[in-house]
Amino acid sequence: MRDVAIIGVGMNKWGELWKSSLRDLAVEAGLKAMADAKADHIDSIVVGCMSSGLFTAQEHIAPLVAEYLGQGKVPATRVESACASGGLAFRAGFAEVASGLSDVVLVVGVEKMTDVSGDEATFTLGTAADQEYESYNGATFPGLYAMMANRHMHEFKTTRRQLSWVAVKNHANGMKNPNAQYRSEVTAEEVESAVKVADPLRLLDCSPITDGAAAVLLCPLDTARKKAKGHGLVKVLGIGQATDTMALHSRRSLCELAAVSEAGARAYKAAGKGPSDMNCAEVHDCFTIAEIMAAEALGFAAKGKGGRLAESGASSLGGKIPINTSGGLKSKGHPVGATGVAQIVELTEQLRGEAGPRQVKRARTGLAQNMGGTGASCVVSILGAA
Amino acid sequence: MRDVAIIGVGMNKWGELWKSSLRDLAVEAGLKAMADAKADHIDSIVVGCMSSGLFTAQEHIAPLVAEYLGQGKVPATRVESACASGGLAFRAGFAEVASGLSDVVLVVGVEKMTDVSGDEATFTLGTAADQEYESYNGATFPGLYAMMANRHMHEFKTTRRQLSWVAVKNHANGMKNPNAQYRSEVTAEEVESAVKVADPLRLLDCSPITDGAAAVLLCPLDTARKKAKGHGLVKVLGIGQATDTMALHSRRSLCELAAVSEAGARAYKAAGKGPSDMNCAEVHDCFTIAEIMAAEALGFAAKGKGGRLAESGASSLGGKIPINTSGGLKSKGHPVGATGVAQIVELTEQLRGEAGPRQVKRARTGLAQNMGGTGASCVVSILGAA
Repeated sequence: MRDVAIIGVGMNKWGELWKSSLRDLAVEAGLKAMADAKADHIDSIVVGCMSSGLFTAQEHIAPLVAEYLGQGKVPATRVESACASGGLAFRAGFAEVASGLSDVVLVVGVEKMTDVSGDEATFTLGTAADQEYESYNGATFPGLYAMMANRHMHEFKTTRRQLSWVAVKNHANGMKNPNAQYRSEVTAEEVESAVKVADPLRLLDCSPITDGAAAVLLCPLDTARKKAKGHGLVKVLGIGQATDTMALHSRRSLCELAAVSEAGARAYKAAGKGPSDMNCAEVHDCFTIAEIMAAEALGFAAKGKGGRLAESGASSLGGKIPINTSGGLKSKGHPVGATGVAQIVELTEQLRGEAGPRQVKRARTGLAQNMGGTGASCVVSILGAA
Repeated sequence: MRDVAIIGVGMNKWGELWKSSLRDLAVEAGLKAMADAKADHIDSIVVGCMSSGLFTAQEHIAPLVAEYLGQGKVPATRVESACASGGLAFRAGFAEVASGLSDVVLVVGVEKMTDVSGDEATFTLGTAADQEYESYNGATFPGLYAMMANRHMHEFKTTRRQLSWVAVKNHANGMKNPNAQYRSEVTAEEVESAVKVADPLRLLDCSPITDGAAAVLLCPLDTARKKAKGHGLVKVLGIGQATDTMALHSRRSLCELAAVSEAGARAYKAAGKGPSDMNCAEVHDCFTIAEIMAAEALGFAAKGKGGRLAESGASSLGGKIPINTSGGLKSKGHPVGATGVAQIVELTEQLRGEAGPRQVKRARTGLAQNMGGTGASCVVSILGAA
């Protein structure tokens, strides 16, 4: 396998982007990544998108993105794995370069979620759960994650306040990210007095519905070394991918994210690194409890201590392992197919030293964890300054 | 890149399979491919599926298939490119093995289309066209392909009868395929008196709506040589992929399938072969005119002579280049995400000499061409007996 470098990144300012269509969003992010790399040519495209069919009545979006990017006949493939679609698209792009099938690959993650009503969006997001056994019986994602949160609070004495610290931290980070959807600080008290969605989760424990796209440009590391233009080089050190049962009720425990542990272990092994080597991490905080459980599964906190990690400030900017410096899904927004690619954008900016007010000092190695559903699919990517 | 072999194939008998769910179909085909290879272990899964969201309200199907196959934590990825989803999944599985990311990869193509009404199915298939410019204005696929047919008849004097020969030939082949949906011979007169769908296309010019799945198991050629169990070895010689404009009206000509030509040229180059080296071919005959145009784009007939190819018998079983020995989409059925994988199943059986009454004599090299929409995406795979 060839070593792979990230030579360009780009994304939109995320939000409710009523004036932009799915193709507009993808093209804007893609062109930004190409401009960032000063590249005018690509060999192939991978698009990550969860449900363009249900959200916008448009499947077959990879050739559409290729066409509207002005990239004529290039091979273009869409990858879907619910909210992990972006992360899996990144892995597919990596495989494309690593295998030698393509030299310059553009990976675009995109989702256009606000063309449908809130109820329709909830229904569509529910297609990431096991429809026959979960969604059709009324278990939507806030309810499923609420069960996980309740069990975690029961087993490990995780507190309501610890959940809140995740939201407080990520909004504080998002304040520093010009591309974040909600650039507003929140206090623990505000989180705890927000409208209840599914006990114990309140509105400010939940990631929002977002339109947005993100893109990264990949090429062989050798080529990147020769052609690097103005940015520090970022290398893909290792990627791990894994799956778990679709339905939450099929799992041994509500407090374990087995696919995250497995994907993390594979990524650490591929990179020859461990949790303590990470200088920053982007973690899939679709709900506050998700960040807590993912931090445990990735080894940033001991089992049951994920809540304490947030409370202690260790995962804040300036802490031992800053998590979600971008603002995370919580504050930056969560256009489901774009999220995994935007995590790579954030890590790349951190490892290049270009993250401005969010910059983690001496960031040399970072990790991105992106998952689908209640963790039925997961991809973990580890990047390093090269 | 490592050389890649096909060590197992399997599919269901296709049709309106009211008693089988999406996951049932995928698991049945996957287990058959694993049994065919006498394999009980896989390293990763790629699923090709066009629109499980709109057809069955279930996205995120790759981990679902992994779980129900009893394959626990393995990485699983879904690939979508409308009716080329299966072919692209095959390419993604190839990349997975070729790159060294996985050793044993199961590729499953699946679509469950009959859980919705005919109108809903037409709407869903329309999401493979450019929704904003085509589908929303009433241009469904029979209409779009009818325009291509009319233009082809105008420019090249292709006759109504030549269209019919494609249907007659493919139904004759499908009669010999126990897995085909419509195992019934048709005559040219029957095709021409069938109900008109979009002039000049009649019902028997159109592929049907189908439930079904198909699967192939891949591994490195070196491993396959050591472990081959009872079947002739089949090697992937080359794969080409390309795109074209989504909307038909953006093309230079209604009679050119540029993505097919480009994907074909790439596949021929990768394989070091040309059209005359092919002993059999599976071609994307979603409509009779599609086979005619694809045969031209792939070099089996000169430009404008695709109709004559069918009429002459050259593409019949026993002819110079037998096309769609499986029955094609026309007779075998067209569960959109499964079609591209089923083409690989057919070629593998041909190259192993296991195609029974459909066997092409001395078949050593074969080609599969799978496309999405009116040809906005295309993948061409060339296989050889190893």
